[in-house]
Amino acid sequence: MTTELTAPARGFERAEFDQRTARLQEAMAAQGIDAVFFSTEPEFRYFSGFKSQFWESPTRPWFLVVPSQGRPIAVVPEIGVAGFAETWVDDVRSWPSPRPEDDGVSLLADTLDSVAQRHRRIGAMLGPETHLRMPAANFATLQASLGQCGMVDVSTIVRQLRSVKSAAEIGKIRFACEVTAAGFDYLLTHLKAGMSEREACKAMHIEMLRLGADACPYLISASGPGGYDNIIMGPSDRRLEEGDVLIIDTGANFDGYFSDFDRNYAFGQVDPTAHQAYEAVFASTEAGLRTAAPGATTGDVWQAMWSVLEDAGALGNDVGRMGHGLGMQLTEWPSNVPKGDVVLQAGMILTLEPGMTFAPGRMMVHEENIVITDSGCELLHKRAWPTLPVIG
Amino acid sequence: MTTELTAPARGFERAEFDQRTARLQEAMAAQGIDAVFFSTEPEFRYFSGFKSQFWESPTRPWFLVVPSQGRPIAVVPEIGVAGFAETWVDDVRSWPSPRPEDDGVSLLADTLDSVAQRHRRIGAMLGPETHLRMPAANFATLQASLGQCGMVDVSTIVRQLRSVKSAAEIGKIRFACEVTAAGFDYLLTHLKAGMSEREACKAMHIEMLRLGADACPYLISASGPGGYDNIIMGPSDRRLEEGDVLIIDTGANFDGYFSDFDRNYAFGQVDPTAHQAYEAVFASTEAGLRTAAPGATTGDVWQAMWSVLEDAGALGNDVGRMGHGLGMQLTEWPSNVPKGDVVLQAGMILTLEPGMTFAPGRMMVHEENIVITDSGCELLHKRAWPTLPVIG
Repeated sequence: MTTELTAPARGFERAEFDQRTARLQEAMAAQGIDAVFFSTEPEFRYFSGFKSQFWESPTRPWFLVVPSQGRPIAVVPEIGVAGFAETWVDDVRSWPSPRPEDDGVSLLADTLDSVAQRHRRIGAMLGPETHLRMPAANFATLQASLGQCGMVDVSTIVRQLRSVKSAAEIGKIRFACEVTAAGFDYLLTHLKAGMSEREACKAMHIEMLRLGADACPYLISASGPGGYDNIIMGPSDRRLEEGDVLIIDTGANFDGYFSDFDRNYAFGQVDPTAHQAYEAVFASTEAGLRTAAPGATTGDVWQAMWSVLEDAGALGNDVGRMGHGLGMQLTEWPSNVPKGDVVLQAGMILTLEPGMTFAPGRMMVHEENIVITDSGCELLHKRAWPTLPVIG
Repeated sequence: MTTELTAPARGFERAEFDQRTARLQEAMAAQGIDAVFFSTEPEFRYFSGFKSQFWESPTRPWFLVVPSQGRPIAVVPEIGVAGFAETWVDDVRSWPSPRPEDDGVSLLADTLDSVAQRHRRIGAMLGPETHLRMPAANFATLQASLGQCGMVDVSTIVRQLRSVKSAAEIGKIRFACEVTAAGFDYLLTHLKAGMSEREACKAMHIEMLRLGADACPYLISASGPGGYDNIIMGPSDRRLEEGDVLIIDTGANFDGYFSDFDRNYAFGQVDPTAHQAYEAVFASTEAGLRTAAPGATTGDVWQAMWSVLEDAGALGNDVGRMGHGLGMQLTEWPSNVPKGDVVLQAGMILTLEPGMTFAPGRMMVHEENIVITDSGCELLHKRAWPTLPVIG
């Protein structure tokens, strides 16, 4: 059987950028912020529509300025100007880059100064889960040259905006998820004892590209007799053999939006505790699916999932959370954590990622991707198999 | 014909990490720096050997501290601890992350404080082509808690160290380059008028994975009648047709090391000026190959290449440079720029990337990857075809 999937339209309607920008400007007005600048790819793309793989090159900084009214202003290296013809941004200011002695800093400062005349308050991404993609020395220079302007953190505003996805965004993520699920199904019939982790991941990688993923920036695996001890390394050249449990966790990308989930496979007869752990973690996800709904908090979701794992004898969890937001980045705000107080809203996309150490050095982790609906939540792809699938 | 290539060994000998760290410590001693901390993936991996795709998740910061003597100290989220068993780092300090109220900042501050007792000078990556991968607010907190310590930029030290590659590093880059060259050759026989840019890139992507690339984080294309107007966007759904010139530029990755070069293709009869531009840019690369050698500067290489393009009637170049370093990142220091004063040394890996606007809105860009040898330079892959290849 060859799976074929139908991809949604690429890009967004112009109205979507209008709305995103208007929502940010509304929040800026409430806090008396004249302008915000962004330096990282997701925010730059979210507000401008500029989508390029060139962010892979760390040499040149790129800036987007959102004034209190009107469209964003791009402050970018000359090499990037032509790309804005495809966007709704019409004010594109550039400098010949690389120019280490002033790589866009004075141009950014002038731009911000010109649009921050009213309150002299400028917003930037300074808070948790962010960074500034510019040299720290240049940020210090920028702050000095904007001496009379205050710099305030807008990361909590922006993460809130970005956490609620539009129908078009959900469509892209759903497609990335469907491709990923089909990739995991493909492995069910293509995994064999004797393959290496790397060969298994490569086969899935190619299959997901064939099915319509643009790229697969995250594709890890871990394996071992009866379990694995981490979920962020690999794939290695370790050969899979009778008695192993294998996990593969992946984030496929379509049109700039991610999936992020995993699947577990047993090779022949594995330790029964691995099967039991699998079923406990599956049940934990069920509890998460019943709980995730508008009005529930990230702490409620965590608690519902953790109770099941605790009852099943979990020894601990060193992942630090059991799921998170998902979208333009593999992991986004918020996190499902103990006492988490973020209230879920329709349109949020989350992963449910229960996991536990069930024996010393042996973990079991599941993950599924959901969208919060008006009345509860909906899986964005085929659910994991209710029991640990056995290869061979 | 099916190409098969043989990959070099993965990872590095322990001695390589010893040497990298010793060289950094030597430079630190010369400047009275007690400890350096890193927050970005390439430097973290360069000194520790810790290699994980988990950097794709922006949620948690990771830190590596290199003291004045001895091995690096990892200051990392709990989720990452198990992965250090594979490295030469044995001092691994962790905190339960995500913890937005103190995501590793106090642990990093304590660690730095304990190893910076002598000169009270701490090095960080603050200069050109760098950023700090941590919230700016947390960096401010860190600086405040290390109040009695000075923070100095070490980016110029680190870029110098990283720019000269070891034999093992060169082997990995050479393999990534060979895979890339084979991918471009594959397209010679698989491109057809009527394909979209995206389909062409997808075919090459899958072929490069099949040939042994781990991933291909950069794979762009541009096309148009008689030429293209940018080299950083795409691939688009534009259908390739008679009269088009297509460029594909890609960075394939093997074991954490990149290739970065491009190839051009004509579809049927194209405007003769495109053929002339191709030959001029090919000759420009030849001039670069003759010039790049120990003792020559990046400015010499730029001048040699630009003279040829100028004689050929170039209208300009908005790329801002004609090649750059290459290795753990798609683009690294130094840049081939006018008056560039970086003196080439054996072991440096560079791209030669001559390009010009040869008619309004039409560019021609070539790129090749070389290693500087004791007596000159050596291509790391098969040279581009001397004339613009014609498809169909």
